[in-house]
Amino acid sequence: MEQAEPPAAAAVARNRKVVLREYISRAPREDDMALVDDGGTVALRVPPGGADPAVLVKNLYLSCDPYMRGRMRDFHHSYIPPFKPGSVIQGLGVARVVDSTHPGFSAGDIVSGMTGWEEYSLIDKPGQLNKIQQSDIPLSYHLGLLGMPGFTAYVGFYEVCSPKKGDFVFVSAASGAVGQIVGQLAKLHGCYVVGSAGTNQKVELLKDKFGFDAAFNYKEEPDLMAALKRYFPEGIDIYFENVGGPMLDAVLLNMRTHGRIAVCGMISQHGMTDPVGIHNLFCLVSKRIRMQGFIQSDYLHLFPKFLDDMAKHYRDGKIVYVEDMSIGLENAAAAFVGLFSGKNVGKQVVCVSQE
Amino acid sequence: MEQAEPPAAAAVARNRKVVLREYISRAPREDDMALVDDGGTVALRVPPGGADPAVLVKNLYLSCDPYMRGRMRDFHHSYIPPFKPGSVIQGLGVARVVDSTHPGFSAGDIVSGMTGWEEYSLIDKPGQLNKIQQSDIPLSYHLGLLGMPGFTAYVGFYEVCSPKKGDFVFVSAASGAVGQIVGQLAKLHGCYVVGSAGTNQKVELLKDKFGFDAAFNYKEEPDLMAALKRYFPEGIDIYFENVGGPMLDAVLLNMRTHGRIAVCGMISQHGMTDPVGIHNLFCLVSKRIRMQGFIQSDYLHLFPKFLDDMAKHYRDGKIVYVEDMSIGLENAAAAFVGLFSGKNVGKQVVCVSQE
Repeated sequence: MEQAEPPAAAAVARNRKVVLREYISRAPREDDMALVDDGGTVALRVPPGGADPAVLVKNLYLSCDPYMRGRMRDFHHSYIPPFKPGSVIQGLGVARVVDSTHPGFSAGDIVSGMTGWEEYSLIDKPGQLNKIQQSDIPLSYHLGLLGMPGFTAYVGFYEVCSPKKGDFVFVSAASGAVGQIVGQLAKLHGCYVVGSAGTNQKVELLKDKFGFDAAFNYKEEPDLMAALKRYFPEGIDIYFENVGGPMLDAVLLNMRTHGRIAVCGMISQHGMTDPVGIHNLFCLVSKRIRMQGFIQSDYLHLFPKFLDDMAKHYRDGKIVYVEDMSIGLENAAAAFVGLFSGKNVGKQVVCVSQE
Repeated sequence: MEQAEPPAAAAVARNRKVVLREYISRAPREDDMALVDDGGTVALRVPPGGADPAVLVKNLYLSCDPYMRGRMRDFHHSYIPPFKPGSVIQGLGVARVVDSTHPGFSAGDIVSGMTGWEEYSLIDKPGQLNKIQQSDIPLSYHLGLLGMPGFTAYVGFYEVCSPKKGDFVFVSAASGAVGQIVGQLAKLHGCYVVGSAGTNQKVELLKDKFGFDAAFNYKEEPDLMAALKRYFPEGIDIYFENVGGPMLDAVLLNMRTHGRIAVCGMISQHGMTDPVGIHNLFCLVSKRIRMQGFIQSDYLHLFPKFLDDMAKHYRDGKIVYVEDMSIGLENAAAAFVGLFSGKNVGKQVVCVSQE
């Protein structure tokens, strides 16, 4: 008969964190966030005596997503509440379970879901975590191709855009986390696909890597209306809207009758940043356009099918994925800020630790 | 055996016409149109020798519709071509057939369809005319309740707005030709309905005559956002958009999740008149709003059902209709111009002749 040992004191570790300093109402800067070091005091187990089961994870990969900017302002009427100044930034991540009092998770499990921008996070609502089956697909792709951006592309294209073979499809921010997948799904569907991006390097990526039929650098087009007319002489059936502003106005003038516009992502920030407004909504009537905002979380019943479809496309070599990986938590703030000037090439992630 | 008489010379009549002087790009004024008298030279029969069958009609009622403004500008890329300067204004009307070489029409038939703003019109595409069965319903209602505006309300509400019992419905320009019917259909559907209009007289009409749950004069509301919040503390499910501009921006902020906006009518003019633009489209994403432009002519397969439904509602006393009748072709231009400053109370029509 073994004798029970007294509970060992839990190992402790250093836990660096990225915190939001203050609410902002402009584009984020690196110094809006601070890297804080707790000096090595985080216990590597779920604190005993908690009322509800919890999971302690070691964060491996963190996702930089444009919607997070909305959580940095003091605005409480969105679909997701703001961050708290002085508290750690929250975001989607891939992590390894270190300790768990939840029956669904054990030490060593790999999970994805909402976590903190820090080395170790205590997750008090483990029900929102997904367990990841490790495979030949890189773990970080669960923040992109097989994660929220991929799912946004999938439901936006199939559920909102009502695509038909032969449709003329335009994607803005096309090399980004969502756009690159929308374009490839549209090609697989038999559509003609053109993308816009903000550097010539990204334009080459769209054509050479993602198989877009054409692509252009919007910063080199003094007249967006004319550029779209050149790429779509017969007009646009589907616009996957990622940017808003003058591009949306130019697209409206180039839409075809009964066109569809799926509205997603960064336009949700434009209440703050676009004092100019959208002028060409009259096209909605004359061309009978449907313009529809959506959020991927309304379609979670489709997530298992999405995972199956997308993993199969990836393994069959029909869909590729490009991510921009920053190494180290100390580079997370810069990586996030870079999203808003288009510094990233492909989906921006941060590697906190590889194991 | 009777001997054929030589063909009698056709009777002639005076034919006054309203012509467009020049293309305009601002709001129409009375002197953009001119009343021209031909001095009594129109033959009261279809000219012999025409290649295709035609119908000569005497116009009884003419419809003043906001979309006609779009035909007064030199813009050829709309769903309907512009008028020709110097030529008679075209519009929907109710008319009596005087002579016909088309087998479907005989002298004395009452018809509705596209005709000219003049006393007599030669219609060379009679296929577009609808024969009207005279009944207890006033003939002029075929330009409103039972015509294009009524059909616009019907398909916009049932086919575009996806209404559910208990929905909160807002209608702008609510006492107009389309709005008054939308509001009444929404009430019949079990919705809570609020309308806006531009005079207190119209607001009373909405509440007392059309049975709206509430109504307000937008010109007396310095803060449209706050006004809508007051009338819709829980938000708006359906907005039937007739005006664009600041009202649309205020509505966007007050929409509920998964709301629907049917875009119709006057916003189609706003490319010309609204330099300010729409700023709150970010709400489309956060609230997952569907905003859809439509034109009634895409739904013509539903027209017979519409006529049956609407005539029944009218006879059952469940829907009432208010029109603003101007008497005489000489007052047609003023009646049309009045639309754009809200002078009309209800559907604006012009009576050219009662028989």
